[in-house]
Amino acid sequence: MDSITIHTSTNQYQVHIGQKIRHKVPVFLSKHYPSILIITDSVVADLYLEDVKRSFSSEQQIFTAIVPAGEASKNKDCFFDLITKCIDSSLDRHSLIIALGGGVVGDLAGFVAASYMRGIDYVQIPTTLLAHDSSVGGKVAINHPQGKNLIGSFYPPQAVVYDVETLYTLPEQEIRSGYAEIIKHGLISDEVYFEDIIQNGSINKLSNSILMDHLLKGIAVKAEIVEKDEKESGQRQYLNLGHTLGHAIEAELGYGAITHGEAVAIGLLFAMKVSETVYSEDFPYQRLKNWMKKNNYPLTVTGLDEQALIGRMKKDKKSKNQKVQMVLLKSIGKPCVHEVDDRLLMELLHKFLRELVNH
Amino acid sequence: MDSITIHTSTNQYQVHIGQKIRHKVPVFLSKHYPSILIITDSVVADLYLEDVKRSFSSEQQIFTAIVPAGEASKNKDCFFDLITKCIDSSLDRHSLIIALGGGVVGDLAGFVAASYMRGIDYVQIPTTLLAHDSSVGGKVAINHPQGKNLIGSFYPPQAVVYDVETLYTLPEQEIRSGYAEIIKHGLISDEVYFEDIIQNGSINKLSNSILMDHLLKGIAVKAEIVEKDEKESGQRQYLNLGHTLGHAIEAELGYGAITHGEAVAIGLLFAMKVSETVYSEDFPYQRLKNWMKKNNYPLTVTGLDEQALIGRMKKDKKSKNQKVQMVLLKSIGKPCVHEVDDRLLMELLHKFLRELVNH
Repeated sequence: MDSITIHTSTNQYQVHIGQKIRHKVPVFLSKHYPSILIITDSVVADLYLEDVKRSFSSEQQIFTAIVPAGEASKNKDCFFDLITKCIDSSLDRHSLIIALGGGVVGDLAGFVAASYMRGIDYVQIPTTLLAHDSSVGGKVAINHPQGKNLIGSFYPPQAVVYDVETLYTLPEQEIRSGYAEIIKHGLISDEVYFEDIIQNGSINKLSNSILMDHLLKGIAVKAEIVEKDEKESGQRQYLNLGHTLGHAIEAELGYGAITHGEAVAIGLLFAMKVSETVYSEDFPYQRLKNWMKKNNYPLTVTGLDEQALIGRMKKDKKSKNQKVQMVLLKSIGKPCVHEVDDRLLMELLHKFLRELVNH
Repeated sequence: MDSITIHTSTNQYQVHIGQKIRHKVPVFLSKHYPSILIITDSVVADLYLEDVKRSFSSEQQIFTAIVPAGEASKNKDCFFDLITKCIDSSLDRHSLIIALGGGVVGDLAGFVAASYMRGIDYVQIPTTLLAHDSSVGGKVAINHPQGKNLIGSFYPPQAVVYDVETLYTLPEQEIRSGYAEIIKHGLISDEVYFEDIIQNGSINKLSNSILMDHLLKGIAVKAEIVEKDEKESGQRQYLNLGHTLGHAIEAELGYGAITHGEAVAIGLLFAMKVSETVYSEDFPYQRLKNWMKKNNYPLTVTGLDEQALIGRMKKDKKSKNQKVQMVLLKSIGKPCVHEVDDRLLMELLHKFLRELVNH
């Protein structure tokens, strides 16, 4: 088992990564909680809910709430129903919420924990690759019909308990989704790490040790950045590489049409294209695209309206005075935030989307 | 003009108190905000919205949102509509929200600011006496049908701009409501301050200087406590004196039937009664009650179900393992938190409510 400590402005917490650790959750908690609400989704519940429940002692009251699997659950009604569940379960400020699942459950349950009684403790037990990213850093949120994560908070968990065994039951789409963020962590941090990922070929055939290595490096990249900039005023924005267009695509297609990571993958390719133009630098665009194709990323998404996408990009949380601020790369490992002129953005986006479909 | 500085764990801000300062809001802001959304209610809008709007320069984009006056606006739909208003106004993380109004507007607009894009700046411009309390300390929230302020956050404002001139247009009920919190600040801090308030008689006939003095002292009491305990784990709970029953009464009668402060006033009397029993101490119960009667506090509220009230009290944020934790007084100026046994609570509440109606 490995552990990484994350320091925040208000506390510190540990990310534990290991095999079968979902069976011993209390070991990783610094307090005894009389009441615990486990929030999970309909898919994960069948696989791991009993394991996590059984890890607690019989004198602890364990409540469960199961939301439908998928991004659509990050909505206001689901959020409000979960608050009602907290009240009905008589949770108080000494209770714990456990987010058992992927990024959707983590974001949703985390925002419930952040808002219920102005904040109670919560623990993340991620069960997807993608959640190696979202479970670290304390960003929690729900979606608004007009944009992703527009309603939320910075609210760090008490601990992250990451049982890699749960990753082997993931469908291929989820692995793709998670690897987009791993690729992103490579792109913003280190060319060697990035090359190591894309040279490994098919993500479905990775050995346990290579997967653990990619994950640990990804978490370390994320941890280093969020420690330096918890509230996203500077460096933390780099973690949004690929997300400005990615979020816009997700919203335009309707949440759930493709996964978050699949949308981010397209966003990463676009960020490379824009970076090439802005900084006159060469990037391994075609090699990355080939890797994505080999791993069946849905790159030829049709029916996207360019104006509508740009409108969405302007509603991004990084935007300033209604100008799109994109994270770009000066080179691999050297991210920066750049204000992209509307006209240039339109031109590059038009060309990019056409090329995606055609090649 | 007077200013009090409040230090929080993450920043510090100033509470400015003076005459006519609503006309010069930008003076109190440390940044220039290109976009500003003023959230206010239907009553305050007619009185002061134009003054505040006009205090900004013409190159700043000013948006306004007007919610119905009254506690009922602290609901989830109103909250989500305001988030939508933020999106429609293209507010970003460099924008400002202004909460112009009483505690309802402050709590609601504050939670919108806390949650929109995971938090943007906001400023409180309180226009009620009660808001001398709620605008200091960073507690923001909306209500759940099952309880007050159950969904919220600790999120300090950038500044509080308190124009006492706005207090002279308050209806009598609002003045009563605010004075309940002033009485509370007296009870938890200092017998001299408390006596000074109740010996001054009718709160409608106070001079400007006495009112300013009471307000400044109240804010200073609140500021001292919230600085020591921002997140309400210890001392800050003392500020809930009178609120455990007060909130329960508000919820049972339906929000808005009587004002928050009027409900707290009844709660203060009850807290004194319980304190008398638990600590075998004498308190000026009858004198406080007489002062309240003279000032037309609605003390003879009928139709309250004792079991239902206790059920509500158990859902209070201070409650622990489903036991009611009440703030009591060992003596005036010496508050403490005490777990009150269900049976004793029932007995005292039954007797208290009967006496309230009969005397």
